Amino acid sequence: MKNERTFEEAIPEHLRVARTRPKRVSDRYTPPHQSFVARFKPSVREVAMAFIGVQYSGEKPEATNEALAVIAESLSGKHAPGHWDRAEYVDEAGSTNVVTAAYWDSRAVFDAWLAKGRFKDWWEDETRCADGIGYFREIFIPRAEEFETIFSHRQHEGVSHLAQGMSGEVFEHGYWGSSRDRIALSQVHDLEPSGFPMPAVAPGAPAGRVRINPQHNLCIIRSGQDWTETGQAERELYLNDVLPPLSEGMIFLRDDGDQIGCYSNRFMTLVDGSGAKIDKSYSLSMWRGLAELERWAESHPTHLAIFVAAIRHYSRLGEGAMLRVYHEVSIVRREDQILEYVNCHSRTGILKNLGKQV
Amino acid sequence: MKNERTFEEAIPEHLRVARTRPKRVSDRYTPPHQSFVARFKPSVREVAMAFIGVQYSGEKPEATNEALAVIAESLSGKHAPGHWDRAEYVDEAGSTNVVTAAYWDSRAVFDAWLAKGRFKDWWEDETRCADGIGYFREIFIPRAEEFETIFSHRQHEGVSHLAQGMSGEVFEHGYWGSSRDRIALSQVHDLEPSGFPMPAVAPGAPAGRVRINPQHNLCIIRSGQDWTETGQAERELYLNDVLPPLSEGMIFLRDDGDQIGCYSNRFMTLVDGSGAKIDKSYSLSMWRGLAELERWAESHPTHLAIFVAAIRHYSRLGEGAMLRVYHEVSIVRREDQILEYVNCHSRTGILKNLGKQV
Repeated sequence: MKNERTFEEAIPEHLRVARTRPKRVSDRYTPPHQSFVARFKPSVREVAMAFIGVQYSGEKPEATNEALAVIAESLSGKHAPGHWDRAEYVDEAGSTNVVTAAYWDSRAVFDAWLAKGRFKDWWEDETRCADGIGYFREIFIPRAEEFETIFSHRQHEGVSHLAQGMSGEVFEHGYWGSSRDRIALSQVHDLEPSGFPMPAVAPGAPAGRVRINPQHNLCIIRSGQDWTETGQAERELYLNDVLPPLSEGMIFLRDDGDQIGCYSNRFMTLVDGSGAKIDKSYSLSMWRGLAELERWAESHPTHLAIFVAAIRHYSRLGEGAMLRVYHEVSIVRREDQILEYVNCHSRTGILKNLGKQV
Repeated sequence: MKNERTFEEAIPEHLRVARTRPKRVSDRYTPPHQSFVARFKPSVREVAMAFIGVQYSGEKPEATNEALAVIAESLSGKHAPGHWDRAEYVDEAGSTNVVTAAYWDSRAVFDAWLAKGRFKDWWEDETRCADGIGYFREIFIPRAEEFETIFSHRQHEGVSHLAQGMSGEVFEHGYWGSSRDRIALSQVHDLEPSGFPMPAVAPGAPAGRVRINPQHNLCIIRSGQDWTETGQAERELYLNDVLPPLSEGMIFLRDDGDQIGCYSNRFMTLVDGSGAKIDKSYSLSMWRGLAELERWAESHPTHLAIFVAAIRHYSRLGEGAMLRVYHEVSIVRREDQILEYVNCHSRTGILKNLGKQV
């Protein structure tokens, strides 16, 4: 008996509208492998994603641990996010950054968290400019129709921890442009950006707070890898054959991304509660628009090398592959972004390419 | 002073209509390098492309030379095509095939050529089934809105010899899906195929004529390379770095193409009037539909290897690159195809995958 595959549409029923813009693939298309999307309750109208950074250079100052403790504390109790995780990396300036990613499925709860309480008091405290380390917060609040997810396995990561569950096998994946086809707003909108992120305070200031006037329809991607459950053979294949081109591509985006519309890229390793690295990583990058991300992914040799390595990995391992990959892509309106940097070096996040009109 | 690039739309003015299907790229897109399309007079409503094959195995029989002479003779004089060329290759069964490609810019003239005169008499002669070699004719007559071309240089090849001239730098190229965006019919149509090519006479017959009942919207691509004018250094780069992945991809399509919707692929070297090989090659392949061709091109490791090698070649050589590449892609209606095989082995052209519903 033939094993018939059945597919779900990536866009959930409650977000479907009459398309004025067709999908990129025909009904005859068959995805090359299984993938899944996170399914949210229809009552989830938007999600808030806060990336809160602590930055230091050299030996870890004591202020870092205090800051991380305050951030963690602020994320529990009243107005707590549905999920948060923490990752760490050394950036292009040689500074260490610890980035806490927190996700809320209610704007009202997020707004309350932001507007009052432990985090607000701590963030606004003048000590932030004076305790010798840097801080940033990059906050995005896409509406349900403005973001999409895709997962190789049904394991939750990132924003999907807010979901009701995972879909069955979806149809719209495995081809260039499929991310766009999974974003509900693309049914009727080109998702094009306008404006450019600009400093609200001159970024040259050696210390102090820099707030950004955002651009419209910024594109954000969190793209992750989880090799926690790989056996030794698969782990070695991942570390030897997939990770090298992945790292090279991440460095290209970090150092030369401005040439192709990538404002910033951080390739980070997740850490556990004690701050020790675990077998999960993700990159967080900000793009001028989805079109630029699409272009890099589908045509740049650095991404094609990653793509081919991943294809080869899954072909070798077949259905037993335990390397899990996923991403979440959001297109965020101007009014749904908060970008602030305190005492950070000038190559931090979007500061590096401010006003460059990449 | 900044050197401003200006672009032409690939679809000529006389074929533009109000789009119901948007292009894949936004107006903010910039092509990564220069490319050009062939520009035809508005009076050219369709073109006829005839690929006429002579097939033999082992030592070249004298009948081959006679056949090639008759074909050449039939292509001059009254109802002659605007251009023809000839190429040769050894196929997957070890047979040598000499393929004459002829192009007409008038259906009336082509129809007259086909319906009477030297070629018709010769083709219908019963001797064709009895002189120990094989013959085929694969004829496609796309309308102006059903085919597109793209060229790295302004040099004419293939169907572009019928053109009035070459465009300036065009906008719609350098991204996956750009071929579709250059086909005028795609402004309002998904170009999807229907049906499958089926034998009108059982293909198992050891000799005799096999005629195909074509499918609707077959996709044909002629994709060529010309290293005639490369200097020694560039020639070595082409032969050492580009040709190997190109050959590998061509063999994949030839031997395993049926898995991904490619019915047939011939990778051939052009020959001069004396039959000697020259520094030009092209592949001719038939596909279930444009979507299948797009999918292979944009995602299969064999094509991505070719793509990355070509990018690297042009990056190394810069504007001085003399390696010329081009393609012509047509989507052909059922009624605009003639596919006939006489005394050919069963892996010839579309015979190999007849009725397979790939």
